[in-house]
Amino acid sequence: MAPGHYCFSFEEGDGKNKQLLGGKGANLCEMTQIGLPVPPGFVISTEACLKYFEQGEKLPEGLMDEVRQHIADLEEKTGKGLGNRENPLLVSVRSGSALSMPGMMDTILNLGLNDDTVQGMIQLTQNERFVYDSYRRLLQLFGKICLGVADEHFDKVFDQVKEEQHATFDTELTAAALRDVSERFKEVIQKRTGSPFPHDPWQQLETAIEAVFRSWMGKRAVDYRRQFKITPEMANGTAVNIVTMVFGNLGNDSATGVGFTRDPGTGENRLYGDYLINAQGEDVVAGIRTPRPLRDLRQDMPEVYRELEKLRHTLEKHYREVQDFEFTIERGKLYALQTRNGKMNAWALIKTSVDMVNEGLFNEEVAISRVQPEMLEQLLHRRIDPDNKMEPIITGIAASPGAAVGKVVFDADRAEQLGRLGEPIILVRIETKPEDIHGFFASQGILTSRGGKTSHAAVVARGMGKPCVAGAEALEIHYDVKEARIGEHTIREGDVITIDGSNGNVYLGSVSMLEPEFSEDVFTLLDWADEHADLEVWANADTPEMAALARKYGAKGIGLCRTERMFNDPERLPVVRELILADSPEARKMAIDRLMPMQRSDFLEIFRAMSGLPVTIRLLDPPLHEFLPTAEELASEISNLKEFNQIMRSLEQLPETLMVLDPELRKYIPGIEAVSREFSDYKQRGLDERLLKQKENTLRKVRALQEVNPMLGHRGVRVAISYPEIYEMQVRAIFEAAAQGLREGLEVKTEIMVPQVCTLQELLWVHRRVVAIHEEIEKRYNVKINYKFGTMVEVVRACMRAGKLASVAEFFSFGTNDLTQATFSFSREDAENKFLPLYTEHQILQDNPFEILDIKGVGRLMQVAIEWGRKTRSDLKVGICGEHGGEPRSISMCRELGLNYVSCSPLRVPVARLAAAHAQLGAQKAAGSL
Amino acid sequence: MAPGHYCFSFEEGDGKNKQLLGGKGANLCEMTQIGLPVPPGFVISTEACLKYFEQGEKLPEGLMDEVRQHIADLEEKTGKGLGNRENPLLVSVRSGSALSMPGMMDTILNLGLNDDTVQGMIQLTQNERFVYDSYRRLLQLFGKICLGVADEHFDKVFDQVKEEQHATFDTELTAAALRDVSERFKEVIQKRTGSPFPHDPWQQLETAIEAVFRSWMGKRAVDYRRQFKITPEMANGTAVNIVTMVFGNLGNDSATGVGFTRDPGTGENRLYGDYLINAQGEDVVAGIRTPRPLRDLRQDMPEVYRELEKLRHTLEKHYREVQDFEFTIERGKLYALQTRNGKMNAWALIKTSVDMVNEGLFNEEVAISRVQPEMLEQLLHRRIDPDNKMEPIITGIAASPGAAVGKVVFDADRAEQLGRLGEPIILVRIETKPEDIHGFFASQGILTSRGGKTSHAAVVARGMGKPCVAGAEALEIHYDVKEARIGEHTIREGDVITIDGSNGNVYLGSVSMLEPEFSEDVFTLLDWADEHADLEVWANADTPEMAALARKYGAKGIGLCRTERMFNDPERLPVVRELILADSPEARKMAIDRLMPMQRSDFLEIFRAMSGLPVTIRLLDPPLHEFLPTAEELASEISNLKEFNQIMRSLEQLPETLMVLDPELRKYIPGIEAVSREFSDYKQRGLDERLLKQKENTLRKVRALQEVNPMLGHRGVRVAISYPEIYEMQVRAIFEAAAQGLREGLEVKTEIMVPQVCTLQELLWVHRRVVAIHEEIEKRYNVKINYKFGTMVEVVRACMRAGKLASVAEFFSFGTNDLTQATFSFSREDAENKFLPLYTEHQILQDNPFEILDIKGVGRLMQVAIEWGRKTRSDLKVGICGEHGGEPRSISMCRELGLNYVSCSPLRVPVARLAAAHAQLGAQKAAGSL
Repeated sequence: MAPGHYCFSFEEGDGKNKQLLGGKGANLCEMTQIGLPVPPGFVISTEACLKYFEQGEKLPEGLMDEVRQHIADLEEKTGKGLGNRENPLLVSVRSGSALSMPGMMDTILNLGLNDDTVQGMIQLTQNERFVYDSYRRLLQLFGKICLGVADEHFDKVFDQVKEEQHATFDTELTAAALRDVSERFKEVIQKRTGSPFPHDPWQQLETAIEAVFRSWMGKRAVDYRRQFKITPEMANGTAVNIVTMVFGNLGNDSATGVGFTRDPGTGENRLYGDYLINAQGEDVVAGIRTPRPLRDLRQDMPEVYRELEKLRHTLEKHYREVQDFEFTIERGKLYALQTRNGKMNAWALIKTSVDMVNEGLFNEEVAISRVQPEMLEQLLHRRIDPDNKMEPIITGIAASPGAAVGKVVFDADRAEQLGRLGEPIILVRIETKPEDIHGFFASQGILTSRGGKTSHAAVVARGMGKPCVAGAEALEIHYDVKEARIGEHTIREGDVITIDGSNGNVYLGSVSMLEPEFSEDVFTLLDWADEHADLEVWANADTPEMAALARKYGAKGIGLCRTERMFNDPERLPVVRELILADSPEARKMAIDRLMPMQRSDFLEIFRAMSGLPVTIRLLDPPLHEFLPTAEELASEISNLKEFNQIMRSLEQLPETLMVLDPELRKYIPGIEAVSREFSDYKQRGLDERLLKQKENTLRKVRALQEVNPMLGHRGVRVAISYPEIYEMQVRAIFEAAAQGLREGLEVKTEIMVPQVCTLQELLWVHRRVVAIHEEIEKRYNVKINYKFGTMVEVVRACMRAGKLASVAEFFSFGTNDLTQATFSFSREDAENKFLPLYTEHQILQDNPFEILDIKGVGRLMQVAIEWGRKTRSDLKVGICGEHGGEPRSISMCRELGLNYVSCSPLRVPVARLAAAHAQLGAQKAAGSL
Repeated sequence: MAPGHYCFSFEEGDGKNKQLLGGKGANLCEMTQIGLPVPPGFVISTEACLKYFEQGEKLPEGLMDEVRQHIADLEEKTGKGLGNRENPLLVSVRSGSALSMPGMMDTILNLGLNDDTVQGMIQLTQNERFVYDSYRRLLQLFGKICLGVADEHFDKVFDQVKEEQHATFDTELTAAALRDVSERFKEVIQKRTGSPFPHDPWQQLETAIEAVFRSWMGKRAVDYRRQFKITPEMANGTAVNIVTMVFGNLGNDSATGVGFTRDPGTGENRLYGDYLINAQGEDVVAGIRTPRPLRDLRQDMPEVYRELEKLRHTLEKHYREVQDFEFTIERGKLYALQTRNGKMNAWALIKTSVDMVNEGLFNEEVAISRVQPEMLEQLLHRRIDPDNKMEPIITGIAASPGAAVGKVVFDADRAEQLGRLGEPIILVRIETKPEDIHGFFASQGILTSRGGKTSHAAVVARGMGKPCVAGAEALEIHYDVKEARIGEHTIREGDVITIDGSNGNVYLGSVSMLEPEFSEDVFTLLDWADEHADLEVWANADTPEMAALARKYGAKGIGLCRTERMFNDPERLPVVRELILADSPEARKMAIDRLMPMQRSDFLEIFRAMSGLPVTIRLLDPPLHEFLPTAEELASEISNLKEFNQIMRSLEQLPETLMVLDPELRKYIPGIEAVSREFSDYKQRGLDERLLKQKENTLRKVRALQEVNPMLGHRGVRVAISYPEIYEMQVRAIFEAAAQGLREGLEVKTEIMVPQVCTLQELLWVHRRVVAIHEEIEKRYNVKINYKFGTMVEVVRACMRAGKLASVAEFFSFGTNDLTQATFSFSREDAENKFLPLYTEHQILQDNPFEILDIKGVGRLMQVAIEWGRKTRSDLKVGICGEHGGEPRSISMCRELGLNYVSCSPLRVPVARLAAAHAQLGAQKAAGSL
């Protein structure tokens, strides 16, 4: 048969040309041509559809002639005949454009049925009920789609019949009832359209083709294309697929099912799927019968099973991807109806990636590209068992992934106390502060009622890899009574809850969990990723444990070791406070001398964990007041104390006086006992003048340190210039630890980083001291300590002065959190709670710039800084240690900006490694070199 | 006489060659050559000095021969002889390098005296005491400088003689005693050097020349040059000036004095100065006799006075500048000893500038350049009478210039209350807040104990042109008792004090004042300045009064009209608070509807004041919480209220119970009366539950609005996007006022400016609303309202996106205060109180970037923004409205950056106009076109 202008049989259609044949049509052609048993059929091209509209909704000339030829071809292939009562050919007429638009356009099944062929089908299938059910469906679909009769007219009739039959469900209707429905449906069509249902299959066919074409310009489809911005370049017109109907419900030698070429849950290389004997696809959907696993088919139909195995290999060999396919077995004959790339969970995706490279199905680049970086997150955390049926009581913001179960505790001290006893804890706070850090260590997870993905709780939890749900606003927390209320529920200290930081769900009680898995395959894939990326991935790690984790996950160094986290350790905080509250240089020195050995041992342990890899230590960054209680707390305490004291003074002698009154007389003074108790209580609390003094002293210092805008305040290198002894102590601790490490045989590569720098003079100021201490300690320990000296670039002015800074700094590390705040003049904490949601809602910003690096503003500044910095020092090493360092889109931008490395929290390292490879492969693809 | 290699007579030396002849030598040559009666003399060049050191401290060959020739010349001119007993020639030997190094090098007077010539001098002067005093001075100076005998040896002897004579002061010594001193000084020299004092004047001369040369490399001089970074290019070697001594103390026909070619206090064009008959310069210094005004000399010596008048004109004609000169009259003959440019106050400088242009002495460019812009500040404010002798009790930071006297008041409400009664008030606060604004209006001046030049108090006071002394830290202010303590002093409410914001002084009581003067001459000079500057000067003005003032001082427009100042008006603040605290859109609308007419009338009045000139109105900028009390204040009040209530509840019945006790019994309860009083007092204050509720409500709202970093918070256009009705109300008020103004016949040029913009979308968001309201109001009023739409550029990202912003914005106005904060990540308030002083002290920053625009960082960003903005819109108008707009160095940078205008507070407008002209003239000079 010669190819027509508009129609293409599955044997001849170009399986790559989705624009012409639509996605479904191309797919069916492709499957046919690689030898799969697709039911015979053909495609009417999208060109015909366009022509149809061009000509004012008229079928193109010659189209129906072509259709007739192709139907004749089908009749020949199947031995059936369109409208033939003995062996009727039934077909489906389906829409299908270049892009999938699920449910937007129309499909008609069982076309070819009429009062005549129905009888033939009953003969053939011996299943009268099935045939009438098919018939009434055709009548309704055809009536609605081709003839424009509204569903409600059919539904009304159908409901009447059900009522007459006392049936609640469709499935309760008998063959006779369904025949009755068919009869009445035909009457509906006659009544509504003024003409009878067309029994002529050719007329059915022509009407159906036109109807499918028209559905392309239907309101639903047009709206959908507008909504998803589908342009004519992407999809123009719909094709029409005309396919021989096959039936899996023609007896026990028939079946229908769904298969995967590999197990989508584990990635195992074996046929996987479900099937139902003597059933149609919709029986599976109806859920009346339970499908059986495909392996059972080996017993039921060994021959067909072998065919399926062959089909699986054919599919994979051709598509080079795991396939998810539909099949029907009609009287022992296997038909493949559809295939598409199989959706898999992270575990399966990774295993198949590695296996299929080993099997030669694709190369490493493809293996890398198949796995979206974010998917790796799933592998790193415990997760709620997907089979769990519990309903969450509240849903907050998914702030740090993973699930945790534990007893509710409302303050950090208590969390620590219970944590020591081995209790699993969920720390529940309105919001958290740096001084709660010990509570984080002691807890399995964190739940807050305020703050977003970049709140303190979220950032710290992510850094520690602990699950966190933030901003669960419906949670009313009352610290005083140690309760949290959600609607009528009350959660008390000690109650067990489960939180899921991957989706923000919070459950009452304990929900079953799956443990994280991180297989050899993951490491293999990540090693490949590293080979395909120039951008290195380092980690932000403040403790030896985190450093070890980072190393395990493949970090090439530590890009940010925050020394203030060490200050917040509950054993050290009192010493740090002594340092800050010190009234004399001597007192300050005493505190410094106690802190030094603590810091030294911190550093030594990190050097041990990272021997051979660089460790970038950032000198103290936060403002000192962050280590003290707030003025508001103190002021309120003081105000109360004073009030008590004043009352006490005025009433000093009263209680004694009352007590010495004659007992008889006391009776006349109502409430006197309670009053006396109150007094002695107040006295105890109120008369402590020493406590008052102490609190007032602290308040004075807090007030002096208080800042209007702490983000822009006395912090980082600015603190160092005011109190040189702090950085001197830290630098000394670093070099002493390095010296000790070298003696132990470690390979120590330390990099000292100065935060908040805005001018060359600051950097020089610190550098002079570093050089002096380095020299002194090299001499004292008689070792050679190599180190690098560099700066954070997180102040806008540092970008503007990058050329100068690079004359001293051997490396730059962009602190994109702070840099973003300064570039936008957005305070992160304020912005995310107040106006940022509105900004993204109104599309004033496309993304939250604290989550996705703002390439137009912040990126531009970085670009300038890198260019000027490298002009001064061509081998300037440049990295990023803001949270963006673990976010795939931002990582891609970092690569474009020419960074050497990104640094992120240890648990994000795998994601970042994969993202770095993706970025590079994407760029190579765009440049045409892949 | 032929000119030598090293020596130049005053008649032949090149008066312009300071490098060769030193400053003093060149000056004496110049004066001689223009015909002034300079005492004969000559200069030994700096080349001789350099040669002296080159040859290892040996006088150059032939030098002394030259000296001898020049001395012979002097002898001829004076008729005196070196060493001649009858008529001895005495000379001074003075150092003098190209740059003045006051007191660093040596000078010897009366050289030529010896035992012989002393007798001659006594004959000539008939003043033995004077001659021996001169002699003993020569001996000591010569001994010390030329022979290296330490002062202490001379001083010891001198003290002995004084003791013997029972004299306390040198002046009490008789001629005989001084002769005795001279004799003993000669013995000191003999004893200490082993040789007698050289009586040979030639030997004296040679030794003195060498000594002056050596002083160039003396420790003092070398240190001085290092300290002030004086390089050899600037001054290399010292010259030696040898000048005939003249004496103003040779009788009543002799005198000495100092003259100005014009009055340096008023600029009046007349001879001005002081003189003393029969006196030497040092007599004036000793202060024993009171000098007389020069006009008296007209009677005393009419001939000499005429010569002085001639000299004055000769000087001005030559130097084209007011001169300050020294003279001596020796026996009726006038000698000019020195001349230099006269130092004048602002008033005199301006008058002479204008006068001398009119007299043709110099042109307008010179007139402009002569007056430093900052000097104009002096003219704008009342000032403390310079003759006042009172001592300040404390000195703070000079935060806003001018002086004010008034009664001390410690809070803004009280200030307003007393201010209404016409009392002059000085508002004294620890620091001020926006809600104190009504107190500023009511006060003459402001004094704070905290904060610097850019504290709230300082900025607001400068904006209003009111004097302010800030950061007077020794002032302990106690609001509760309405007292301020400074050491043992206590200042109470109502006490009168005087503050001087020009130098930071604070005085107890009332100090006499001079009223400001702003003469026609100032306006003339400023008009010239405008003609010589392309950069326009606009003003920041929030009220009609300020606008009028700005216009009076020559502002070409209003560059910043802050609408929030209007919100802070005490009558409006309650409505603004209603708006913010509103719980429903209706309540918000009600408040908005009340605010609208107020704003409209504000704008209309400003349009009236500025008809014909542009008025740039900035829509609301500060975060809403700035209009509310602080959380800390509220929390403390609430905590107290609660405490009271609790006590009250527990003790409810007690007072009654106590009161009903038998009076006889009451005696047994000590202090019962006081207790009862306390209770009823507390009850009154404490039991107001309604007040508590209200306060708690407000606190809740304040907490919700509270921000961690308000500078980077929910403000400017961000508030507009959250509460569109606020900007809509303001825009409506602007256009309605414009429409009304146009009907009145005003020429309204309004420019609407959006603050805190960081992305094009924000600007578009506001622009859409502005366009809609504009259209509506044009239609309603049936007028054509022209306006411009633009943006503040104060967020770093706005600079990066300037090209995009300029597609909507017709003008940019740099808010350099905020931009500087964001660029440095310095919060101004925090930085200036905490680390900035240390930064400038350690030279980490050269200047406070909030005072002087930081050209390397902030300026760089501005440059980029202007370039990109004008690429999009070539006629983009660019200005600056930060405080830098009134600072001369910053104005010069703004000119270089290509700005169209600077906008500053009205009182800075004159300074800025002059600075703009200076910048332009400076640039033209550098480019060689002037």
